[in-house]
Amino acid sequence: MNPKKKSFPPKSDRRRPREESGEWMLYEGRNAVMELLRAGKPVDKLFLSADVSGRMADIVSMAKASGAVVVECDRRKLDAMSETGVHQGVIAQAAAHEYVSLEDILQTARDRGEKPLILICDGLNDPHNLGAVIRSAETAGAHGVIIPKRRAVGLTATAAKASAGAIEHIGVARVTNLAATIDTLKEQGVWVFGADAGGDKNLYDADFADSCAIVIGSEGNGLSRIVREKCDFIVSIPMKGKVNSLNASAAAAVLLYEAVRQRP
Amino acid sequence: MNPKKKSFPPKSDRRRPREESGEWMLYEGRNAVMELLRAGKPVDKLFLSADVSGRMADIVSMAKASGAVVVECDRRKLDAMSETGVHQGVIAQAAAHEYVSLEDILQTARDRGEKPLILICDGLNDPHNLGAVIRSAETAGAHGVIIPKRRAVGLTATAAKASAGAIEHIGVARVTNLAATIDTLKEQGVWVFGADAGGDKNLYDADFADSCAIVIGSEGNGLSRIVREKCDFIVSIPMKGKVNSLNASAAAAVLLYEAVRQRP
Repeated sequence: MNPKKKSFPPKSDRRRPREESGEWMLYEGRNAVMELLRAGKPVDKLFLSADVSGRMADIVSMAKASGAVVVECDRRKLDAMSETGVHQGVIAQAAAHEYVSLEDILQTARDRGEKPLILICDGLNDPHNLGAVIRSAETAGAHGVIIPKRRAVGLTATAAKASAGAIEHIGVARVTNLAATIDTLKEQGVWVFGADAGGDKNLYDADFADSCAIVIGSEGNGLSRIVREKCDFIVSIPMKGKVNSLNASAAAAVLLYEAVRQRP
Repeated sequence: MNPKKKSFPPKSDRRRPREESGEWMLYEGRNAVMELLRAGKPVDKLFLSADVSGRMADIVSMAKASGAVVVECDRRKLDAMSETGVHQGVIAQAAAHEYVSLEDILQTARDRGEKPLILICDGLNDPHNLGAVIRSAETAGAHGVIIPKRRAVGLTATAAKASAGAIEHIGVARVTNLAATIDTLKEQGVWVFGADAGGDKNLYDADFADSCAIVIGSEGNGLSRIVREKCDFIVSIPMKGKVNSLNASAAAAVLLYEAVRQRP
Protein backbone atom coordinates (compact mmCIF):
# COMPACT_ATOMS: atom_id res chain seq x y z
CA MET A 1 0.00 0.00 0.00
CA ASN A 2 2.91 2.30 0.59
CA PRO A 3 5.56 1.99 -2.07
CA LYS A 4 7.78 4.70 -0.61
CA LYS A 5 8.76 3.20 2.71
CA LYS A 6 10.59 5.73 4.80
CA SER A 7 13.33 5.45 7.32
CA PHE A 8 12.41 5.51 10.98
CA PRO A 9 11.33 7.71 12.68
CA PRO A 10 9.33 9.30 9.93
CA LYS A 11 10.05 12.95 9.47
CA SER A 12 6.72 13.54 7.89
CA ASP A 13 4.53 13.76 10.92
CA ARG A 14 4.33 17.50 11.22
CA ARG A 15 1.45 18.46 13.41
CA ARG A 16 -1.55 19.51 11.48
CA PRO A 17 -5.27 19.45 12.06
CA ARG A 18 -6.19 15.83 12.29
CA GLU A 19 -8.74 13.92 14.18
CA GLU A 20 -9.35 10.40 15.06
CA SER A 21 -11.65 8.05 13.28
CA GLY A 22 -11.18 4.65 14.84
CA GLU A 23 -7.80 3.45 13.71
CA TRP A 24 -7.58 6.11 11.12
CA MET A 25 -6.82 9.71 11.18
CA LEU A 26 -8.32 12.26 8.88
CA TYR A 27 -6.11 14.79 7.19
CA GLU A 28 -8.29 17.67 6.13
CA GLY A 29 -7.70 20.41 3.62
CA ARG A 30 -5.50 20.76 0.58
CA ASN A 31 -2.21 21.45 2.37
CA ALA A 32 -2.52 18.71 4.95
CA VAL A 33 -3.44 16.14 2.33
CA MET A 34 -0.67 17.26 0.03
CA GLU A 35 1.91 17.03 2.85
CA LEU A 36 0.68 13.59 3.67
CA LEU A 37 1.01 12.37 0.10
CA ARG A 38 4.39 14.02 -0.37
CA ALA A 39 5.68 12.33 2.76
CA GLY A 40 4.73 8.99 1.21
CA LYS A 41 2.47 8.04 4.07
CA PRO A 42 0.02 5.24 3.33
CA VAL A 43 -3.31 6.84 2.47
CA ASP A 44 -6.30 4.57 2.57
CA LYS A 45 -8.97 6.73 0.97
CA LEU A 46 -9.18 10.18 -0.50
CA PHE A 47 -12.58 11.84 -0.20
CA LEU A 48 -13.13 14.61 -2.67
CA SER A 49 -16.00 16.99 -3.13
CA ALA A 50 -17.22 16.89 -6.73
CA ASP A 51 -17.15 20.69 -7.01
CA VAL A 52 -13.42 20.93 -6.36
CA SER A 53 -12.16 17.87 -8.21
CA GLY A 54 -11.05 20.01 -11.13
CA ARG A 55 -8.66 21.95 -8.88
CA MET A 56 -7.35 18.85 -7.14
CA ALA A 57 -5.96 17.03 -10.16
CA ASP A 58 -2.44 16.94 -8.67
CA ILE A 59 -3.67 15.50 -5.39
CA VAL A 60 -5.85 12.96 -7.15
CA SER A 61 -3.04 11.71 -9.32
CA MET A 62 -0.63 11.43 -6.37
CA ALA A 63 -3.26 9.65 -4.30
CA LYS A 64 -3.97 7.18 -7.07
CA ALA A 65 -0.27 6.60 -7.61
CA SER A 66 0.13 5.79 -3.94
CA GLY A 67 -2.62 3.20 -4.13
CA ALA A 68 -5.35 5.16 -2.39
CA VAL A 69 -9.00 4.73 -3.30
CA VAL A 70 -10.35 8.05 -4.51
CA VAL A 71 -13.99 8.64 -3.55
CA GLU A 72 -15.83 11.54 -5.16
CA CYS A 73 -18.74 12.55 -3.01
CA ASP A 74 -21.09 15.27 -1.97
CA ARG A 75 -19.67 18.17 -0.01
CA ARG A 76 -22.18 17.47 2.74
CA LYS A 77 -20.58 14.08 3.34
CA LEU A 78 -17.25 15.82 3.85
CA ASP A 79 -18.91 18.30 6.20
CA ALA A 80 -20.23 15.40 8.23
CA MET A 81 -16.84 13.64 8.34
CA SER A 82 -14.84 16.74 9.10
CA GLU A 83 -13.61 17.34 12.63
CA THR A 84 -11.95 20.63 11.92
CA GLY A 85 -14.72 22.08 9.79
CA VAL A 86 -12.10 23.34 7.33
CA HIS A 87 -11.71 20.57 4.79
CA GLN A 88 -11.68 22.67 1.58
CA GLY A 89 -13.39 19.82 -0.20
CA VAL A 90 -10.70 17.20 0.41
CA ILE A 91 -10.13 14.73 3.22
CA ALA A 92 -7.63 11.89 3.29
CA GLN A 93 -8.02 8.92 5.55
CA ALA A 94 -4.69 7.45 6.56
CA ALA A 95 -3.30 5.11 9.18
CA ALA A 96 -2.78 7.02 12.39
CA HIS A 97 0.84 6.01 12.39
CA GLU A 98 3.21 3.78 10.53
CA TYR A 99 4.40 0.57 12.02
CA VAL A 100 7.91 -0.77 11.87
CA SER A 101 9.00 -4.38 11.51
CA LEU A 102 10.46 -6.64 14.16
CA GLU A 103 13.71 -6.46 12.24
CA ASP A 104 13.63 -2.65 12.44
CA ILE A 105 13.42 -2.92 16.22
CA LEU A 106 16.35 -5.34 16.43
CA GLN A 107 18.31 -3.12 14.06
CA THR A 108 17.67 -0.12 16.34
CA ALA A 109 19.30 -2.05 19.19
CA ARG A 110 22.28 -2.96 16.96
CA ASP A 111 22.61 0.63 15.79
CA ARG A 112 22.80 1.80 19.38
CA GLY A 113 25.24 -0.95 20.32
CA GLU A 114 22.87 -2.20 22.99
CA LYS A 115 21.30 -5.51 23.83
CA PRO A 116 17.66 -5.50 22.73
CA LEU A 117 15.10 -4.28 25.25
CA ILE A 118 11.65 -4.76 23.78
CA LEU A 119 8.19 -4.32 25.20
CA ILE A 120 5.41 -6.59 23.97
CA CYS A 121 1.77 -5.69 24.71
CA ASP A 122 -0.44 -8.74 24.64
CA GLY A 123 -3.75 -7.17 23.68
CA LEU A 124 -4.24 -3.72 25.16
CA ASN A 125 -7.69 -2.38 24.34
CA ASP A 126 -7.54 1.18 25.54
CA PRO A 127 -5.63 3.62 23.32
CA HIS A 128 -4.76 5.74 26.37
CA ASN A 129 -3.08 2.73 27.91
CA LEU A 130 -1.22 1.89 24.72
CA GLY A 131 0.00 5.47 24.42
CA ALA A 132 1.11 5.58 28.05
CA VAL A 133 2.90 2.24 27.66
CA ILE A 134 4.73 3.51 24.58
CA ARG A 135 5.77 6.56 26.57
CA SER A 136 7.14 4.39 29.39
CA ALA A 137 9.01 2.25 26.85
CA GLU A 138 10.52 5.26 25.16
CA THR A 139 11.70 6.94 28.37
CA ALA A 140 13.25 3.65 29.52
CA GLY A 141 15.23 3.51 26.29
CA ALA A 142 13.54 0.39 24.92
CA HIS A 143 14.22 -0.33 21.26
CA GLY A 144 10.65 -0.93 20.25
CA VAL A 145 7.15 -1.99 21.17
CA ILE A 146 5.31 -4.95 19.66
CA ILE A 147 1.53 -5.17 19.54
CA PRO A 148 -0.76 -7.77 17.95
CA LYS A 149 -2.99 -7.00 14.97
CA ARG A 150 -6.07 -8.62 16.39
CA ARG A 151 -8.08 -8.01 19.53
CA ALA A 152 -5.96 -5.00 20.40
CA VAL A 153 -5.96 -1.30 19.82
CA GLY A 154 -3.55 0.08 17.25
CA LEU A 155 -1.79 3.39 16.90
CA THR A 156 -4.81 5.64 16.86
CA ALA A 157 -4.65 9.38 17.22
CA THR A 158 -5.67 8.93 20.86
CA ALA A 159 -2.78 6.55 21.48
CA ALA A 160 -0.43 8.95 19.75
CA LYS A 161 -1.61 11.80 21.94
CA ALA A 162 -1.41 9.71 25.14
CA SER A 163 2.18 8.82 24.28
CA ALA A 164 3.15 12.48 24.76
CA GLY A 165 5.14 12.41 21.55
CA ALA A 166 6.97 9.17 22.37
CA ILE A 167 5.38 7.55 19.35
CA GLU A 168 7.62 9.68 17.13
CA HIS A 169 10.76 8.30 18.75
CA ILE A 170 10.18 4.60 19.26
CA GLY A 171 9.15 2.04 16.67
CA VAL A 172 5.96 0.06 17.10
CA ALA A 173 5.62 -3.23 15.25
CA ARG A 174 2.20 -4.75 14.73
CA VAL A 175 2.35 -8.50 14.18
CA THR A 176 -0.18 -11.06 13.06
CA ASN A 177 0.90 -13.78 15.42
CA LEU A 178 2.40 -12.84 18.74
CA ALA A 179 3.38 -16.43 19.58
CA ALA A 180 5.32 -16.77 16.32
CA THR A 181 6.98 -13.41 16.96
CA ILE A 182 8.07 -14.60 20.39
CA ASP A 183 9.58 -17.70 18.75
CA THR A 184 11.48 -15.48 16.33
CA LEU A 185 12.78 -13.36 19.19
CA LYS A 186 13.92 -16.45 21.07
CA GLU A 187 15.73 -17.70 17.97
CA GLN A 188 17.56 -14.38 17.91
CA GLY A 189 18.77 -14.89 21.44
CA VAL A 190 16.23 -12.63 23.14
CA TRP A 191 14.92 -13.83 26.51
CA VAL A 192 11.18 -13.38 26.82
CA PHE A 193 9.74 -12.44 30.22
CA GLY A 194 5.99 -12.48 30.70
CA ALA A 195 4.67 -10.28 33.47
CA ASP A 196 1.87 -11.95 35.35
CA ALA A 197 0.67 -12.65 38.84
CA GLY A 198 1.89 -15.95 40.23
CA GLY A 199 5.10 -15.94 38.24
CA ASP A 200 7.97 -18.30 38.98
CA LYS A 201 10.20 -15.42 39.91
CA ASN A 202 10.06 -12.05 41.47
CA LEU A 203 10.73 -9.15 39.15
CA TYR A 204 13.92 -8.28 41.01
CA ASP A 205 15.36 -11.77 40.59
CA ALA A 206 14.98 -11.64 36.82
CA ASP A 207 18.00 -10.89 34.65
CA PHE A 208 17.07 -8.07 32.31
CA ALA A 209 20.68 -7.12 31.57
CA ASP A 210 20.85 -9.59 28.68
CA SER A 211 18.79 -9.23 25.49
CA CYS A 212 15.21 -9.35 26.60
CA ALA A 213 11.59 -8.73 25.73
CA ILE A 214 9.03 -8.02 28.42
CA VAL A 215 5.42 -9.01 27.78
CA ILE A 216 2.57 -7.28 29.57
CA GLY A 217 -1.00 -8.54 29.38
CA SER A 218 -4.28 -6.89 28.56
CA GLU A 219 -6.11 -4.64 31.00
CA GLY A 220 -8.64 -7.18 32.16
CA ASN A 221 -7.20 -10.59 31.48
CA GLY A 222 -3.44 -10.46 31.75
CA LEU A 223 -1.40 -12.66 29.44
CA SER A 224 -3.19 -14.94 27.01
CA ARG A 225 -2.56 -18.65 27.57
CA ILE A 226 -0.56 -19.21 24.42
CA VAL A 227 1.67 -16.19 24.98
CA ARG A 228 2.21 -17.16 28.59
CA GLU A 229 3.33 -20.63 27.52
CA LYS A 230 5.77 -19.19 24.99
CA CYS A 231 7.57 -17.01 27.55
CA ASP A 232 10.93 -18.15 28.92
CA PHE A 233 10.02 -16.85 32.36
CA ILE A 234 6.99 -15.47 34.11
CA VAL A 235 7.89 -12.66 36.48
CA SER A 236 5.64 -10.97 39.01
CA ILE A 237 5.60 -7.44 40.30
CA PRO A 238 5.10 -7.71 44.06
CA MET A 239 1.58 -6.60 44.98
CA LYS A 240 1.81 -5.32 48.52
CA GLY A 241 -1.75 -4.10 48.87
CA LYS A 242 -5.22 -5.41 48.16
CA VAL A 243 -5.49 -4.32 44.55
CA ASN A 244 -4.01 -7.10 42.45
CA SER A 245 -2.55 -5.25 39.50
CA LEU A 246 -0.92 -2.04 38.39
CA ASN A 247 -2.23 -0.22 35.39
CA ALA A 248 -0.55 -1.13 32.13
CA SER A 249 1.78 1.86 31.82
CA ALA A 250 2.82 1.67 35.45
CA ALA A 251 3.54 -2.06 35.15
CA ALA A 252 5.52 -1.47 31.97
CA ALA A 253 7.47 1.32 33.65
CA VAL A 254 8.31 -0.77 36.72
CA LEU A 255 9.53 -3.69 34.59
CA LEU A 256 11.45 -1.59 32.09
CA TYR A 257 13.10 0.51 34.78
CA GLU A 258 14.26 -2.61 36.54
CA ALA A 259 16.02 -3.34 33.23
CA VAL A 260 17.41 0.22 33.24
CA ARG A 261 18.72 -0.34 36.77
CA GLN A 262 20.38 -3.62 35.84
CA ARG A 263 21.93 -2.40 32.61
CA PRO A 264 25.18 -0.48 32.56
CA MET B 1 -25.39 10.58 59.69
CA ASN B 2 -23.87 7.18 59.18
CA PRO B 3 -24.25 4.82 62.11
CA LYS B 4 -22.47 1.88 60.46
CA LYS B 5 -19.03 3.36 60.21
CA LYS B 6 -16.27 1.14 58.88
CA SER B 7 -12.90 1.02 60.57
CA PHE B 8 -11.14 2.33 57.48
CA PRO B 9 -10.82 5.07 56.46
CA PRO B 10 -10.29 6.40 59.97
CA LYS B 11 -12.99 8.30 61.75
CA SER B 12 -11.37 11.68 61.40
CA ASP B 13 -12.64 14.15 58.90
CA ARG B 14 -15.97 12.71 57.83
CA ARG B 15 -16.56 14.99 54.96
CA ARG B 16 -19.97 16.02 53.88
CA PRO B 17 -20.55 16.09 50.20
CA ARG B 18 -19.63 19.48 48.91
CA GLU B 19 -21.67 20.11 45.87
CA GLU B 20 -20.02 23.41 45.14
CA SER B 21 -16.64 21.83 44.60
CA GLY B 22 -17.91 18.74 42.80
CA GLU B 23 -16.66 16.46 45.52
CA TRP B 24 -19.62 14.17 45.63
CA MET B 25 -20.42 11.37 43.31
CA LEU B 26 -23.56 9.76 42.04
CA TYR B 27 -24.31 6.09 42.46
CA GLU B 28 -26.88 5.15 39.87
CA GLY B 29 -29.20 2.19 39.64
CA ARG B 30 -30.61 -0.23 42.16
CA ASN B 31 -27.51 -2.42 42.61
CA ALA B 32 -25.00 0.39 42.94
CA VAL B 33 -27.15 2.22 45.48
CA MET B 34 -27.82 -0.95 47.44
CA GLU B 35 -24.08 -1.75 47.59
CA LEU B 36 -23.36 1.74 48.79
CA LEU B 37 -25.93 1.53 51.57
CA ARG B 38 -24.84 -1.96 52.58
CA ALA B 39 -21.24 -0.78 52.84
CA GLY B 40 -22.44 1.79 55.35
CA LYS B 41 -21.08 4.67 53.32
CA PRO B 42 -22.41 8.10 54.15
CA VAL B 43 -25.18 8.90 51.67
CA ASP B 44 -26.21 12.51 51.43
CA LYS B 45 -29.37 12.31 49.33
CA LEU B 46 -31.37 9.59 47.67
CA PHE B 47 -33.23 10.67 44.54
CA LEU B 48 -36.10 8.43 43.63
CA SER B 49 -38.44 8.47 40.69
CA ALA B 50 -42.05 8.47 41.91
CA ASP B 51 -43.00 5.61 39.57
CA VAL B 52 -40.56 3.16 41.16
CA SER B 53 -40.81 4.11 44.81
CA GLY B 54 -43.08 1.14 45.48
CA ARG B 55 -40.35 -1.28 44.35
CA MET B 56 -37.61 0.51 46.26
CA ALA B 57 -39.02 0.19 49.76
CA ASP B 58 -35.95 -1.67 51.02
CA ILE B 59 -33.57 0.96 49.63
CA VAL B 60 -35.69 3.79 51.00
CA SER B 61 -35.79 2.34 54.49
CA MET B 62 -32.02 1.69 54.50
CA ALA B 63 -31.32 5.18 53.20
CA LYS B 64 -33.57 6.77 55.83
CA ALA B 65 -31.99 4.65 58.56
CA SER B 66 -28.56 5.85 57.47
CA GLY B 67 -29.69 9.45 57.75
CA ALA B 68 -29.99 10.25 54.05
CA VAL B 69 -32.53 12.74 52.78
CA VAL B 70 -34.92 10.93 50.44
CA VAL B 71 -36.11 13.07 47.57
CA GLU B 72 -38.97 11.80 45.45
CA CYS B 73 -38.90 13.48 42.08
CA ASP B 74 -39.80 13.30 38.44
CA ARG B 75 -37.99 10.73 36.31
CA ARG B 76 -36.88 13.53 34.02
CA LYS B 77 -34.89 15.08 36.85
CA LEU B 78 -33.08 11.77 37.27
CA ASP B 79 -32.48 11.61 33.53
CA ALA B 80 -30.92 15.05 33.70
CA MET B 81 -28.71 14.17 36.68
CA SER B 82 -27.60 10.80 35.40
CA GLU B 83 -24.06 10.37 34.10
CA THR B 84 -24.50 6.78 33.03
CA GLY B 85 -27.99 7.07 31.56
CA VAL B 86 -28.98 3.86 33.35
CA HIS B 87 -30.34 4.95 36.70
CA GLN B 88 -33.39 2.66 36.97
CA GLY B 89 -35.21 5.42 38.80
CA VAL B 90 -32.79 5.70 41.71
CA ILE B 91 -29.66 7.80 42.26
CA ALA B 92 -27.77 8.26 45.50
CA GLN B 93 -25.50 11.22 46.11
CA ALA B 94 -22.61 10.43 48.39
CA ALA B 95 -19.22 11.82 49.25
CA ALA B 96 -16.75 10.70 46.63
CA HIS B 97 -14.45 9.59 49.38
CA GLU B 98 -13.36 10.48 52.86
CA TYR B 99 -9.94 11.87 53.56
CA VAL B 100 -7.65 10.76 56.36
CA SER B 101 -5.17 12.81 58.39
CA LEU B 102 -1.38 12.76 58.18
CA GLU B 103 -1.36 11.13 61.62
CA ASP B 104 -3.66 8.38 60.31
CA ILE B 105 -1.10 7.61 57.61
CA LEU B 106 1.78 7.45 60.08
CA GLN B 107 -0.37 5.30 62.37
CA THR B 108 -1.03 2.89 59.49
CA ALA B 109 2.74 2.41 59.16
CA ARG B 110 3.10 1.83 62.91
CA ASP B 111 0.20 -0.62 62.88
CA ARG B 112 1.90 -2.62 60.16
CA GLY B 113 5.26 -2.43 61.92
CA GLU B 114 6.81 -0.82 58.87
CA LYS B 115 8.81 2.32 58.23
CA PRO B 116 6.57 4.91 56.60
CA LEU B 117 6.40 4.93 52.82
CA ILE B 118 4.29 7.87 51.72
CA LEU B 119 3.52 9.33 48.33
CA ILE B 120 2.97 13.08 48.03
CA CYS B 121 1.39 14.50 44.88
CA ASP B 122 2.34 18.13 44.38
CA GLY B 123 -0.65 19.35 42.43
CA LEU B 124 -2.03 16.75 40.03
CA ASN B 125 -4.85 18.22 37.98
CA ASP B 126 -6.21 15.21 36.15
CA PRO B 127 -8.43 12.90 38.22
CA HIS B 128 -7.38 9.93 36.04
CA ASN B 129 -3.77 10.59 36.98
CA LEU B 130 -4.60 10.94 40.65
CA GLY B 131 -6.55 7.67 40.58
CA ALA B 132 -3.76 5.86 38.78
CA VAL B 133 -1.17 7.24 41.21
CA ILE B 134 -3.25 6.07 44.17
CA ARG B 135 -3.42 2.64 42.57
CA SER B 136 0.37 2.52 42.16
CA ALA B 137 0.82 3.62 45.78
CA GLU B 138 -1.57 0.97 47.05
CA THR B 139 -0.02 -1.90 45.12
CA ALA B 140 3.45 -0.85 46.31
CA GLY B 141 2.24 -1.06 49.89
CA ALA B 142 2.59 2.64 50.66
CA HIS B 143 0.91 3.80 53.85
CA GLY B 144 -0.87 6.77 52.39
CA VAL B 145 -1.04 9.47 49.76
CA ILE B 146 -0.94 13.19 50.48
CA ILE B 147 -2.47 15.78 48.16
CA PRO B 148 -2.84 19.53 48.54
CA LYS B 149 -6.20 21.24 48.93
CA ARG B 150 -5.52 23.96 46.44
CA ARG B 151 -4.68 23.88 42.77
CA ALA B 152 -5.11 20.13 42.63
CA VAL B 153 -7.83 17.63 41.92
CA GLY B 154 -9.40 15.83 44.88
CA LEU B 155 -10.98 12.42 45.26
CA THR B 156 -13.66 12.77 42.63
CA ALA B 157 -15.71 9.90 41.25
CA THR B 158 -13.39 9.80 38.25
CA ALA B 159 -10.33 9.52 40.47
CA ALA B 160 -12.04 6.78 42.47
CA LYS B 161 -12.82 4.84 39.31
CA ALA B 162 -9.31 5.30 37.90
CA SER B 163 -7.86 3.93 41.12
CA ALA B 164 -9.42 0.53 40.34
CA GLY B 165 -10.67 0.22 43.90
CA ALA B 166 -7.33 1.18 45.48
CA ILE B 167 -8.99 4.21 47.04
CA GLU B 168 -10.85 1.90 49.41
CA HIS B 169 -7.60 0.46 50.74
CA ILE B 170 -5.20 3.34 51.12
CA GLY B 171 -5.71 6.58 53.01
CA VAL B 172 -5.52 9.89 51.20
CA ALA B 173 -4.83 13.02 53.24
CA ARG B 174 -5.63 16.42 51.85
CA VAL B 175 -3.57 19.17 53.40
CA THR B 176 -3.75 22.94 53.31
CA ASN B 177 -0.03 23.55 53.18
CA LEU B 178 2.19 20.98 51.55
CA ALA B 179 5.39 22.70 52.67
CA ALA B 180 4.27 22.66 56.31
CA THR B 181 3.28 19.01 55.96
CA ILE B 182 6.75 18.20 54.64
CA ASP B 183 8.24 19.95 57.68
CA THR B 184 6.04 17.84 59.96
CA LEU B 185 7.14 14.68 58.19
CA LYS B 186 10.80 15.65 58.54
CA GLU B 187 10.30 16.30 62.26
CA GLN B 188 8.91 12.78 62.51
CA GLY B 189 12.07 11.35 61.00
CA VAL B 190 10.72 10.84 57.50
CA TRP B 191 13.15 11.57 54.65
CA VAL B 192 11.53 13.49 51.85
CA PHE B 193 12.57 12.75 48.25
CA GLY B 194 11.35 15.01 45.48
CA ALA B 195 11.25 13.45 42.03
CA ASP B 196 12.36 15.87 39.38
CA ALA B 197 14.60 16.14 36.39
CA GLY B 198 18.11 17.34 37.19
CA GLY B 199 18.12 15.85 40.67
CA ASP B 200 21.28 15.54 42.74
CA LYS B 201 21.02 11.79 42.69
CA ASN B 202 19.85 9.00 40.52
CA LEU B 203 16.79 7.18 41.72
CA TYR B 204 18.80 4.00 42.26
CA ASP B 205 21.32 5.71 44.53
CA ALA B 206 18.60 6.96 46.87
CA ASP B 207 17.95 5.13 50.12
CA PHE B 208 14.26 4.36 50.32
CA ALA B 209 14.66 1.63 52.93
CA ASP B 210 14.40 4.13 55.76
CA SER B 211 11.22 6.11 56.53
CA CYS B 212 10.51 8.13 53.44
CA ALA B 213 8.06 10.21 51.49
CA ILE B 214 8.31 10.54 47.73
CA VAL B 215 7.00 13.71 46.11
CA ILE B 216 5.92 13.75 42.48
CA GLY B 217 5.10 16.95 40.65
CA SER B 218 2.16 18.05 38.59
CA GLU B 219 1.61 16.89 35.03
CA GLY B 220 2.90 19.98 33.32
CA ASN B 221 5.20 21.73 35.73
CA GLY B 222 6.86 19.18 37.98
CA LEU B 223 7.56 20.16 41.57
CA SER B 224 6.65 23.63 42.76
CA ARG B 225 9.61 25.73 43.87
CA ILE B 226 8.73 25.82 47.55
CA VAL B 227 8.12 22.06 47.72
CA ARG B 228 11.34 21.39 45.85
CA GLU B 229 13.27 23.48 48.36
CA LYS B 230 11.72 21.62 51.28
CA CYS B 231 12.79 18.19 50.03
CA ASP B 232 15.80 16.49 51.62
CA PHE B 233 16.87 15.13 48.25
CA ILE B 234 15.90 15.54 44.63
CA VAL B 235 16.06 12.25 42.75
CA SER B 236 15.72 11.72 39.02
CA ILE B 237 14.35 8.84 37.05
CA PRO B 238 16.78 8.24 34.17
CA MET B 239 15.23 9.38 30.91
CA LYS B 240 16.84 7.26 28.21
CA GLY B 241 14.81 8.49 25.27
CA LYS B 242 13.76 11.81 23.84
CA VAL B 243 10.58 12.29 25.86
CA ASN B 244 11.57 13.96 29.10
CA SER B 245 9.05 12.60 31.58
CA LEU B 246 6.99 9.59 32.50
CA ASN B 247 3.31 9.97 33.19
CA ALA B 248 2.45 10.53 36.84
CA SER B 249 1.33 7.01 37.71
CA ALA B 250 4.28 5.44 35.91
CA ALA B 251 6.72 7.75 37.69
CA ALA B 252 5.08 7.02 41.03
CA ALA B 253 5.25 3.30 40.32
CA VAL B 254 8.94 3.37 39.36
CA LEU B 255 9.88 5.32 42.49
CA LEU B 256 7.70 3.33 44.87
CA TYR B 257 8.84 0.00 43.46
CA GLU B 258 12.45 1.00 43.94
CA ALA B 259 11.46 1.36 47.60
CA VAL B 260 9.80 -2.07 47.45
CA ARG B 261 13.00 -3.53 46.02
CA GLN B 262 15.16 -1.95 48.71
CA ARG B 263 12.93 -2.87 51.62
CA PRO B 264 13.03 -6.31 53.21
